Amino acid sequence: MAAAERIWTAALVVIGDEILSGRTQDKNIAQIALWLNLQGIRLVEVRVVGDAAVAIAEAVNALRARHDYLFTTGGIGPTHDDITVDAIAEAVGVPVVVHSRARAMLERYYISRGGITDARLRMARVPEGAELIENRMSGAPGIRWGNIFIMAGVPAITAMMLDALSGTLEGGRPLLSETIGCWVAESEVADLLGATEKAHPGCQIGSYPFFREGRTGANFVIRSTDAATLGACRADLAARLMAAGRETVDGGI
Amino acid sequence: MAAAERIWTAALVVIGDEILSGRTQDKNIAQIALWLNLQGIRLVEVRVVGDAAVAIAEAVNALRARHDYLFTTGGIGPTHDDITVDAIAEAVGVPVVVHSRARAMLERYYISRGGITDARLRMARVPEGAELIENRMSGAPGIRWGNIFIMAGVPAITAMMLDALSGTLEGGRPLLSETIGCWVAESEVADLLGATEKAHPGCQIGSYPFFREGRTGANFVIRSTDAATLGACRADLAARLMAAGRETVDGGI
Repeated sequence: MAAAERIWTAALVVIGDEILSGRTQDKNIAQIALWLNLQGIRLVEVRVVGDAAVAIAEAVNALRARHDYLFTTGGIGPTHDDITVDAIAEAVGVPVVVHSRARAMLERYYISRGGITDARLRMARVPEGAELIENRMSGAPGIRWGNIFIMAGVPAITAMMLDALSGTLEGGRPLLSETIGCWVAESEVADLLGATEKAHPGCQIGSYPFFREGRTGANFVIRSTDAATLGACRADLAARLMAAGRETVDGGI
Repeated sequence: MAAAERIWTAALVVIGDEILSGRTQDKNIAQIALWLNLQGIRLVEVRVVGDAAVAIAEAVNALRARHDYLFTTGGIGPTHDDITVDAIAEAVGVPVVVHSRARAMLERYYISRGGITDARLRMARVPEGAELIENRMSGAPGIRWGNIFIMAGVPAITAMMLDALSGTLEGGRPLLSETIGCWVAESEVADLLGATEKAHPGCQIGSYPFFREGRTGANFVIRSTDAATLGACRADLAARLMAAGRETVDGGI
């Protein structure tokens, strides 16, 4: 049944020198991946680029053509290093304009916070033809232009924007997953894992080893868009591990 | 002085369905970025792709041509979903061979751990012509092929491999940075930041806002490869913020 299924895909461009310098630990990849999955959309590719217009434009143009949706995070604030809107407008070949509703939102937000300034008005600039994505947290909206969704770098603000988008994007069936944990070196059950995956078309089994408190273990994650297929594969894997004398931990370790 | 400076660059391909599904929070981007900076090499681009040979090959071939060094993480274990070595060998057009020293290392490591098996021997397979990168933690080595460095997905193992590589790669001057924190909305000092950056060629100033305990603040990170240039820019920025009535926090908030 998986063969004929339409898979909706997305890509993400994470924009920011602070990620590439290692100063900031990115949290948007995992956050957006999890959210997309709930929408029935699969994150297929991520690129991280610096605050450089050419790099942003190249990544955006390569990925927006390949996927149903393209998300970006970072570079939409009020300071000189926030160049995402200009870079994307240039990439898609439209001018940057001030969005009147975004301007009104910012003016309202800043009434009690020192008033509007030129720097703050930068956050009302959008590629021409864009729609806004609301953000109750900081006044500055996210931006939708075609299949491009321009989000904040601060994870908590992007969370608000994702919340505002929830349920509005067309997707397919979410990718379901179940996890079985096992205190075993994955190399000891490698053949068993491969054979189990082969016996259940439409399922993928990922093996994720770890070392904790001096012990070796692994979590096996089974993924499928079909609940019955997933359940059968999960039960089979647990049975094969038990038959091999391995104790399993439902839900993972 | 920055104009004539040769900048050594690197890219990173993070390989793994678990990152794209959001199950696992990547830690290798920040870890490798920080390590590269100590070697005087700048991380310029990162791509995250799934466990799919075509996607891995495309990313590897695009990036190895553009940068001095290309790192990959993930997909070098013993299980069926570990396809990085095969995908990279295919991408660069060489066969996969068993590396005799890697085989000996694995045999030695597994003497007290149940002995060598076909699955474990998978971790001795390399693209023909490769050298090994040692890893004291798990017996399975990393792999160097030309300018490609193939590392583990488990961050602690990659840390060991980076340790083994430290000081062996040619690089330039490390990018230095200093941070000034300020309890201010970045939009209130946006012009000041831009003007300061402009006054100090060879420096970049990044502005990273946050919201903590109901308060708005920002950290300003000044970056340069030259210590004197960096120090002058840092002092100027602190002076301008103080002149504007803003208290600053050395080292960031």
